[in-house]
Amino acid sequence: MTDTDYTPPSIWTWEKGNGGKFANINRPTAGATHESTLPVGEHPFQLYSLATPNGVKVTVLFEELLVRGFTDAEYDAWLIDIGEGDQFGSGFVEINPNSKIPALLDRSTEPHTRVFESGSILLYLAEKFGAFVPTGAAERTECMNWLFWQMGSAPYLGGGFGHFYSYAPVRIKYCIDRFAMEAKRQLDVLDRHLADREWMAGEYSIADMAIWPWYGQLVLGRLYDAAKFLQVHGYTNVVRWAETIDARDAVQRGRMVNRSFGDPALQLRERHDAGDFETRTQDKLETNTD
Amino acid sequence: MTDTDYTPPSIWTWEKGNGGKFANINRPTAGATHESTLPVGEHPFQLYSLATPNGVKVTVLFEELLVRGFTDAEYDAWLIDIGEGDQFGSGFVEINPNSKIPALLDRSTEPHTRVFESGSILLYLAEKFGAFVPTGAAERTECMNWLFWQMGSAPYLGGGFGHFYSYAPVRIKYCIDRFAMEAKRQLDVLDRHLADREWMAGEYSIADMAIWPWYGQLVLGRLYDAAKFLQVHGYTNVVRWAETIDARDAVQRGRMVNRSFGDPALQLRERHDAGDFETRTQDKLETNTD
Repeated sequence: MTDTDYTPPSIWTWEKGNGGKFANINRPTAGATHESTLPVGEHPFQLYSLATPNGVKVTVLFEELLVRGFTDAEYDAWLIDIGEGDQFGSGFVEINPNSKIPALLDRSTEPHTRVFESGSILLYLAEKFGAFVPTGAAERTECMNWLFWQMGSAPYLGGGFGHFYSYAPVRIKYCIDRFAMEAKRQLDVLDRHLADREWMAGEYSIADMAIWPWYGQLVLGRLYDAAKFLQVHGYTNVVRWAETIDARDAVQRGRMVNRSFGDPALQLRERHDAGDFETRTQDKLETNTD
Repeated sequence: MTDTDYTPPSIWTWEKGNGGKFANINRPTAGATHESTLPVGEHPFQLYSLATPNGVKVTVLFEELLVRGFTDAEYDAWLIDIGEGDQFGSGFVEINPNSKIPALLDRSTEPHTRVFESGSILLYLAEKFGAFVPTGAAERTECMNWLFWQMGSAPYLGGGFGHFYSYAPVRIKYCIDRFAMEAKRQLDVLDRHLADREWMAGEYSIADMAIWPWYGQLVLGRLYDAAKFLQVHGYTNVVRWAETIDARDAVQRGRMVNRSFGDPALQLRERHDAGDFETRTQDKLETNTD
């Protein structure tokens, strides 16, 4: 039961177990809960992640960099099981004190560089390889505008709409209305921008890669079972853009990496080599033959 | 009344007037609602803003740049009255299609450059002047990590905790608990990080300027009347850092710019010249003398 005519106490106190689907992993304190060493593979980049929209941003960029021929972008992608609290292990917290996926360790620098927040990781890799950020000053700025727009907007879609529409233990009309309205406004912002543009900022860039896993997959009907509720088909420019990106090989691969939920055919729980995708497909074919 | 045992319709529809303090400015569509030309002053930078935390980030950076001797950072700051819908005027939407403050037009480039999202504006100005981002690669990356952290985290503090604790038309226990927990977790992330550091990333930078207006002012008791509720005094490292920043001249000036609410002594509704602060102080003294 949720009380809507509520008088808060003068000092907030934590009552465990009142948080819906992710209640067991939310808490009012930061820091490590247990000692844990992260695995390390052979590549320069060690990614600790999960194929949520924020995780997919980064695996798509890695796969795009590899397609473009940047062999130094080889990476090991390790699964962080947030339901099991992997993000609260001491090793993970050292790389991301905020205990959220994705987190990246660049071992090609001395000392090694920690990079956290998906937007920061996208910018770091794009600048490191000189790719997927427009080179013209005006278009670079526009790319940054939209990259930051995504970071500040998606919490209303994920932590707002998605939570109250799909995950909360009670359904509260006020909250669903508040965040459905904002989600639709954000979709309309994108739809108007994409009306006469192929990409968010001049060329396919990290702005598209940041926005697509959230808003692109929302209009493709993959988030929160909310396509009809939000009437996403009406955002025709966003749909066109989302389908174009969805058809890219690197995007299809990026979506699979660190996936441990949903369609088993899409799950590549760890990724250490480009061949892992083929092995995964081969496994699937053999399974289907049995 | 808010129903907490609610079954949403199959298709969401907009019911006006159910949104609390800012209900009249929230809507499910984007774009301009009316034709309106923005005023333009004499300086290279035209800022259209309001002294909310996101607005203060940028005016603090401008004032810091001027203190450091970058005379090319002179700016005109125009008040955008979001309660009156100024952000939906056609001129504003051209600069920021997301209809949020702050928005910046750089007239020193040809063509002029639009910059929106407070994080993007901070990065744009810092890179343009080569200031307030650490120059070492590791510290620059850490600065970006925390800049993006602020962008992705503050929606839970502002659009989440602040809304449900202070602004919503009903007080809902589930929502207050959810976002109070996250606000405290975020404060603890900062407190641990600042335990053995003076600044967020090596030196005073745009990471501090992004975080301070939200979390710094929260622990200083200036946001949401929530200092006791969230027991902010317990985050002693954040308090120390917040007080240090609060004492800076540029921060005191930045807080005043485009302020149209709260303490009248702090309000400088428009800013076009460094002398405006003195004039404002003079006005105040004369008023006090009367």
